[in-house]
This record gives sequence, structure tokens and C-alpha cells, in this order.
Amino acid sequence: MKLIQGGITAAKGFQATGDYIGIKNKRKDLAIIYSETGCTYAGAFTQNVVKAAPVIWDKNILEKGNKVNAIVVNSGNANAATGEQGVKDTEKMASVTAVAFGIEKENVLVCSTGVIGVNLPMDVIEKGISVVAPKVSGSLENGNNAAEAILTTDTSSKVIAVQEEIEGITITIGGMGKGSGMIHPNMATMLGFVTTDVNISQLMLQKALKKAIDTTFNMITVDGDTSTNDSVLILANGIAGNPIIDKEGEAFDKFFESLYEVCKYIAVSVVKDGEGATKLLEVELSGAASFEDGKALAKTILTSSLVKTAFFGEDANWGRIFCAMGYAGIDFDPNGVDIAIESAAGHISLLRQGLPIQFSEPKAKEILEENEIKILITMNEGNESVTAWGCDLSYDYVKINGDYRS
Amino acid sequence: MKLIQGGITAAKGFQATGDYIGIKNKRKDLAIIYSETGCTYAGAFTQNVVKAAPVIWDKNILEKGNKVNAIVVNSGNANAATGEQGVKDTEKMASVTAVAFGIEKENVLVCSTGVIGVNLPMDVIEKGISVVAPKVSGSLENGNNAAEAILTTDTSSKVIAVQEEIEGITITIGGMGKGSGMIHPNMATMLGFVTTDVNISQLMLQKALKKAIDTTFNMITVDGDTSTNDSVLILANGIAGNPIIDKEGEAFDKFFESLYEVCKYIAVSVVKDGEGATKLLEVELSGAASFEDGKALAKTILTSSLVKTAFFGEDANWGRIFCAMGYAGIDFDPNGVDIAIESAAGHISLLRQGLPIQFSEPKAKEILEENEIKILITMNEGNESVTAWGCDLSYDYVKINGDYRS
Repeated sequence: MKLIQGGITAAKGFQATGDYIGIKNKRKDLAIIYSETGCTYAGAFTQNVVKAAPVIWDKNILEKGNKVNAIVVNSGNANAATGEQGVKDTEKMASVTAVAFGIEKENVLVCSTGVIGVNLPMDVIEKGISVVAPKVSGSLENGNNAAEAILTTDTSSKVIAVQEEIEGITITIGGMGKGSGMIHPNMATMLGFVTTDVNISQLMLQKALKKAIDTTFNMITVDGDTSTNDSVLILANGIAGNPIIDKEGEAFDKFFESLYEVCKYIAVSVVKDGEGATKLLEVELSGAASFEDGKALAKTILTSSLVKTAFFGEDANWGRIFCAMGYAGIDFDPNGVDIAIESAAGHISLLRQGLPIQFSEPKAKEILEENEIKILITMNEGNESVTAWGCDLSYDYVKINGDYRS
Repeated sequence: MKLIQGGITAAKGFQATGDYIGIKNKRKDLAIIYSETGCTYAGAFTQNVVKAAPVIWDKNILEKGNKVNAIVVNSGNANAATGEQGVKDTEKMASVTAVAFGIEKENVLVCSTGVIGVNLPMDVIEKGISVVAPKVSGSLENGNNAAEAILTTDTSSKVIAVQEEIEGITITIGGMGKGSGMIHPNMATMLGFVTTDVNISQLMLQKALKKAIDTTFNMITVDGDTSTNDSVLILANGIAGNPIIDKEGEAFDKFFESLYEVCKYIAVSVVKDGEGATKLLEVELSGAASFEDGKALAKTILTSSLVKTAFFGEDANWGRIFCAMGYAGIDFDPNGVDIAIESAAGHISLLRQGLPIQFSEPKAKEILEENEIKILITMNEGNESVTAWGCDLSYDYVKINGDYRS
């Protein structure tokens, strides 16, 4: 696998663009992804009981097993808690996009991100889609335009593309994402889009996506708030021409590994761009009894406000980490726990077999001054290892989320 | 039931005091509660897997069903993550206290609160107990001294006393508590102590305590971090002389109602004194399918950093409340949800039947400028109502927990 330039338009046959149509204040707010060849489609969606209208639309298309040609995404308005009107507006977005490309609305996916509880400005959106759709192309620049148009409070775009050889054929996977908290006041959403020219069955595509998401998007946290709009969508148009991947095996594994890297890159980028975040925290936990146990422990640590503020304060406060593990809802032997921290500046052990270790405060400070810090945890419960990512909790998080109207 | 002056020494036969012995820097750090008459004892303890040594000691005494004469409490050191030495130190605290009063160590409860992972300074503590124990008395002043000596980052003591008539006999319940976050860096603990002269069986005392805690201490959150030392202990010496309460009925109900008020007062005081808190938030949720569902929903709202920062910013951000409900892990119909806010400045509806309501922003601002705010939620799932308490998330929370060493 190798990293290449580009994003959502890197894979053969995928076109896109993004532009300003008037939903947000000046910044680009509409993105369209298009493939003339109908794509096999897989998706993963928020578990939030309060689901935005577009999430329901996209889940429905997934259940029907339709081929997909286009995704239309608006930022600035999440179309969540908008009732029957919201459902109609999503359908309208799909049908206007379908008309623009001469396809059916059942072949169009819709995503929205932004303010909750406000109906979409449909006149602006309908006109916008008609204007933007004809501009899609496979250029790098238009891929970047799309990546920009899906952002809300994000401070930067998140794009990646990789290539892999599968049975002698080069396949490409491109991706883009957005998200930086449950985002702006009254705003919601983490979105991830992946396009690939690989030839793969729907079943295996969904399987690869689920597996990749379980260990990437589902292992990140910024503020513990699961939004109403979270979606990760992947389209595969098969243009690469490899023998179809319709079962597990070497070809599937290679595709999965590449997809995993794309998903991991987007997921970690979201955390790095977490609202007010000054540090990326990575928990590497080994010796858990099961993946689910390890995940619960790692995510509880990364969700703890006390742990997050300690890292913001560059304080080697293992007591908070240990305490958070204790209330994760998982039974374990505290006397089997080791805790260490590590960064580019070095490695230091803080707790061994449940008991504190004398450590050098200046050395700990050096390690914690870095922007990317690993929290290494070893337990005595089993053989599972998990990795999860989070960020610190800073004054700016409170400012961004408490002060936005002032 | 009536409120009276006093705290832990208000009930007949209870003596106490608190003093500075040298664990903390200058502030009082040792409290002792004593009853010459052996007390029926009930307790509730942290669910954290990482339990401090004194928690294990007190649970053990509860299981044995011993009568209790004394509680010794130190602040400044939690005696948590201290291994075998911690267990020995707790036992030593009990035995030194027992010697001072001429009782057995199995009749002494021990609590510790403060730094995690540091062994207790036992020379200081042994000497301190010997000096402080003879000073206990039933005076109001000494009750207040005890309440002061258990504090850590708290900004004020939390004391209360109430009286009730049971079968023509006046019974008194006094209480004190501490807690204001998972507290100071490397620190842990919410502690509650209740003394009463009521005559009650151990079974009914434990039942009343559990019931009171379920709807008070277990319904509060400051930062979502459950400490390693949380304990609520109640001692009943029976001196009031009422016919023993050994079954449910009017006498039990009256006692429970009074105990509930004492526990509620201490619990809400802890939230009001939450680290950096500027506002007390009360969620009143009705129409839940069950108490457990309602509790999960209410506590998820109050634990959401996005909800907490919105209230700090005095923003009527119902989208965040609605979204937090959605990820509480409870299934419900979003279209059956109403949300309103209320304070001394008025009442305003924000969401009805899952859809936003136009509201006056200036009116919302007025309501949210108050220090005590109710979040009123109605659902369509059943007939259960719950109340839970939390606080906002301010710059000072980040400062207290991120900056303490600077």
C-alpha cells in the first residue's frame, strides 16, 4: 500500500466538487460526489436515537441495496429535529441531484451537517445543486473543494488517498472527513466519505467498512457527545477491474488494510482538530479480556474530563487514569495494571502492578509538553489489545462551546 | 419534619470534633465521630473497581453486622492505590481510635480523602488521633469542626439537621458531607456522614439509606468521574427511644422522608460546590418508561460537556439536550419529547413533540442568567419521574484541574 496525492476524486471514475451556495456565511457549503458507473455502497450511521432525516434516507437506501451514483452534502444545517418537513427536504435534495445527473433519486445519498432544529433553506439548496452539479470533475482541485465544503467548525480539511495492488491490479481508495466536536453550538456531525474503484461485492464492502470503523471511527472521542448525523459512507465503482472480491482471503485483507488506513487517517484527523484540542492522546491498552472490555476502558479514560484537563495541564496524573478505568463498568484486577506515558520526548512508567512508581517530574513534563502523547496500559485479564484516540480539554473548548453568541 | 440548627452532633448521644494534625497544609484534616452507645450501621460505597483501603474496611464491617461506636476520617490523603501498606494503615487508624475510646477496632469505621497513590503519614495520624479523640463533644461548634476537617477542594462545609416526630417521640437526623469534583488533582472523594438517634433495625436502616441514596447521591454529577473513595455512612444509636422501626409502615416512611431530605441537602450542596461551577442544574424528567431509563437520560444530559458549556454560556441550546438524550442508550420516541427551561426569572418551552418552538431569546437569556436552573423534560414512554442535579462546565473547571501545579 502506498500513500498518494488526492482525496475523494483519486479513485478512477469519481468526480466531485464543492462550492458556496448561500447556506453558511461565505464559506463553501455544498459538496457533490459523482460516479457515472453505479457504485456498490456500504455505510455506518450514528447510534443516536434522535436521527437526522438524511441519516434515515441513507440507511433506507442501504437496506434496499440500490447502486449509488451520487452523494450530495450540505454544511451549515444538520436537518435534524425538523420533523416531516425535514424528511421531505432530504428527498428533494436527492431528486434535484438526480435530475442534474439524469439518474433516479434512489441512487443518491444525502448528508447534512450544521445547526439542529432549523429547516433547510430549500430554495437556496435547490438552486445551488443545479448550479454546482455540472461542475464536478475528477481533478485534485475539485476533490479539495468538496473536502472544504463539508466543514463546519473544523480548522482544516481532512483528505487522504492510498493505492494497493490486488491480483496485479492497482486499486485506489480516497477519503475525506469532517468533524471537530459534536461541533458548533446547535451543530452536529462527524462525516466520513470514502470512494474506491475496487471491484467488490456489497456484502464484503459492508464487512470491510464495519471492521475498519470498529477500530477507527468508533475508537475516537472528542467530547463524548454522539451526534444525530454521524455517517461514514463508502462507494465502490469497480472500475479498477480486479477480479471481484466476494469472500475473505488475501485480496479482501489487502483491501481492508488500505481501507483501515484511510479510515484511521480521517478519524485521527478529526480528533487532532477536536474543538480546542492542543494534544492528541492515544491509548494503547493490552491484556484486556476482550475487545469490548478494552474499548470501554480506553474510551472511558479518554472521555474523563479529569484525565483530559490533566493532559491539558501537562500533569502526569496517573491517579485519574486509574480511577477512570475503575468506573468503566468492566471488572478487572487493579493489581494487574501498569500505566506508562510516551511521546517523542521519551517514555516513563507511572504505575506497576497497581502501585505507584517514583518518577522524574521534569522528565514527565518533557514528555507531556509534546503534542502527541501515548498512554500505555497493560492489564492482566487476557490477550486483547486496543487503540483509541482522544484529545485534551482546554479553555478553548469551553470558549468555543460556551461563548459562541457573545 | 423540621429543619434545626446543627449537623453531625445534633442527634442525641453523638459527639464529634475536627482538628489540624499535620496531613494537609494548615487546614483541619482529622475528624472523629463518636457515640458511647453502639450504633446500628448502614453504608453505601463507590462502584469503582479501584477501591481505596478504607472502603474495603468499612464494607467488611457492614458485612459482619458489627455495632459501630466511632468513625475516624482524614482528609489530604485518600489511601487509594496504596497496596498492602494501605490496608494495614487503615486497620491501624481503627485500632488507635479504638484504644482512645476503650472499644474494639471492629467497632470503628475509617474514611480517607485526598491524594491517590501516596501512603498515609502514619506517625502524624497515630499521634493526631490520640490528641483529637479526647476532645469530642456534642457541641454545635465541634460538629462544625468535624464538617470542616473532612473538606479538600470544597469551598464550604455542608451540614444539616432535621427533626421528626415518630409515634410521639422526637427523633433527630444530622449530616455532613464533602465533595466538589472527583476533587483535587490526584484527589478523590465524595463522603457523606449521617447520625441519628432513631431506634431502627439494621435491615430497615440499610433499606432507608439505599432508597435515599438512589434518588439523591446517585442522581448527582459534577464531572462524570466516580471516585475510588465515595462512601455514605449512617449510624443510628437508638437513644431517641421510639419503638424500634423493624418493618415498613408510617414510622419507616417518616424516618425515610427525613433521611431523604438530609441526603438530598448534602448531595445538592456537593453539586453547588462543584469545581468551577457557576450554576446548579436540575433535570426534572417525567414520562420515562422506568426509573432506570429516566436516570440514564437525566444523568447523560447532565454529564454532556456540550450541555454543561451551553449553560455556562447561558445559551438555550435544546439541541444539545435532545442529542444527549439520544445517545443515553435508552430507546424512546423522539417525537414524544418536550423540553422547557425554568428559573426564578420564568419558564420557557423550547421543544414540543420533538419539534422546536419559536421562543424569545431575551426571555431565555433572563432565565439562564439565574444561578439555579431547571431543565424540564416530558416523554411519552411511561409514568416514571426522576430528578437529577448537575452543574455547568466553566473555565475555572479547566483551571482547577489543569493548572493546579503552576
